[in-house]
Amino acid sequence: MYALGTHLLLELRDCNPEILKDLEKVKNIMVSAVKEAKATIIEVSFHEFNPFGISGIVVIAESHMSIHTWPEYRYAAVDIFTCGEVIKPEVAAAYLIKRFECKSPSIVELKRGILSHRNEKLPHKVLSESNGPLKNTEFYQAIGS
Amino acid sequence: MYALGTHLLLELRDCNPEILKDLEKVKNIMVSAVKEAKATIIEVSFHEFNPFGISGIVVIAESHMSIHTWPEYRYAAVDIFTCGEVIKPEVAAAYLIKRFECKSPSIVELKRGILSHRNEKLPHKVLSESNGPLKNTEFYQAIGS
Repeated sequence: MYALGTHLLLELRDCNPEILKDLEKVKNIMVSAVKEAKATIIEVSFHEFNPFGISGIVVIAESHMSIHTWPEYRYAAVDIFTCGEVIKPEVAAAYLIKRFECKSPSIVELKRGILSHRNEKLPHKVLSESNGPLKNTEFYQAIGS
Repeated sequence: MYALGTHLLLELRDCNPEILKDLEKVKNIMVSAVKEAKATIIEVSFHEFNPFGISGIVVIAESHMSIHTWPEYRYAAVDIFTCGEVIKPEVAAAYLIKRFECKSPSIVELKRGILSHRNEKLPHKVLSESNGPLKNTEFYQAIGS
C-alpha cells in the first residue's frame, strides 16, 4: 500500500530534562538526527519559551521534523514526516531516543496520503532550483487535465 | 484526561490543484488559518519543490502548523499542533478545508503528552522575552528536584 509520506509520532517520556531545556543541545541533536537519516536540511528554526521549553522545526527536502519539549515534565513530542524511500526516519527516531536519554519512548507510524486510486510508487520531490513559476504544460500533464 | 498538546492530522484529498501549487496562495492561506485560530505567529517558512509542491511551516507560540502539498494528486497533508486552551485548532482546520476547496477531507485528533501521573491542567508556554538562559532555581522547583 503506497503512501506519499511516512509520519512517525514520538512520545518521549522520562528524558533528561537538562538536555530538553537547552536550546543549543536540542537544536544540535535534531540536526544530527536529520543527518543520521540522510535527509537534506533546508531550514532550521528553534525557539526558547518561558519559563522553559524549546520548539524547533527542521524543514528538510523530504518534508520536516519538529520537536516541542516540556523539560519540567521530562517530556518531548517529536514528529518525523518524510517522503521518498531513501530516508530512514526510524534511524532518526532511534538516535533521538538515545541522545535525549529517553527511558520511556513510544512511537506511532502513520502513512500520509494513501491515494487509493493509484497503485504505483509515488516519487518524492526535489527542491526547485529556480524557485520560479512552474511550467503549466508539465503540471496539467501530471494532474491528467 | 489532560494532555500537553492537541494534534490534528488533516488528510486533504480532492483539493483545487491550482491553489496547492501556488506558493503565495498556500502561504497566505496557512497564515490566515493561524490567525483564525487566534494563534501567535513566530516564524513562517515556505518552500517550493520541483516539479511542483509546497512545503511550509508556521511556528506559533502554541507549537506549529505544517503543510506539504502534492498538487499533481490534488492532495495536501496538514498538521496542526497546539497547546493551551485558548487556541481553536478546529477553526483553523475548517478554514483550510474551505480555502483549499477540499472535497474529501478527513481529520484525526490526537492528544500528545498525556502524562498519567498528573491530573491537573497543564499550562502552555509563552515565548521568552529575553531568550536568555533560564533561572535554574525556577527550573528545579518545577521538575521537583
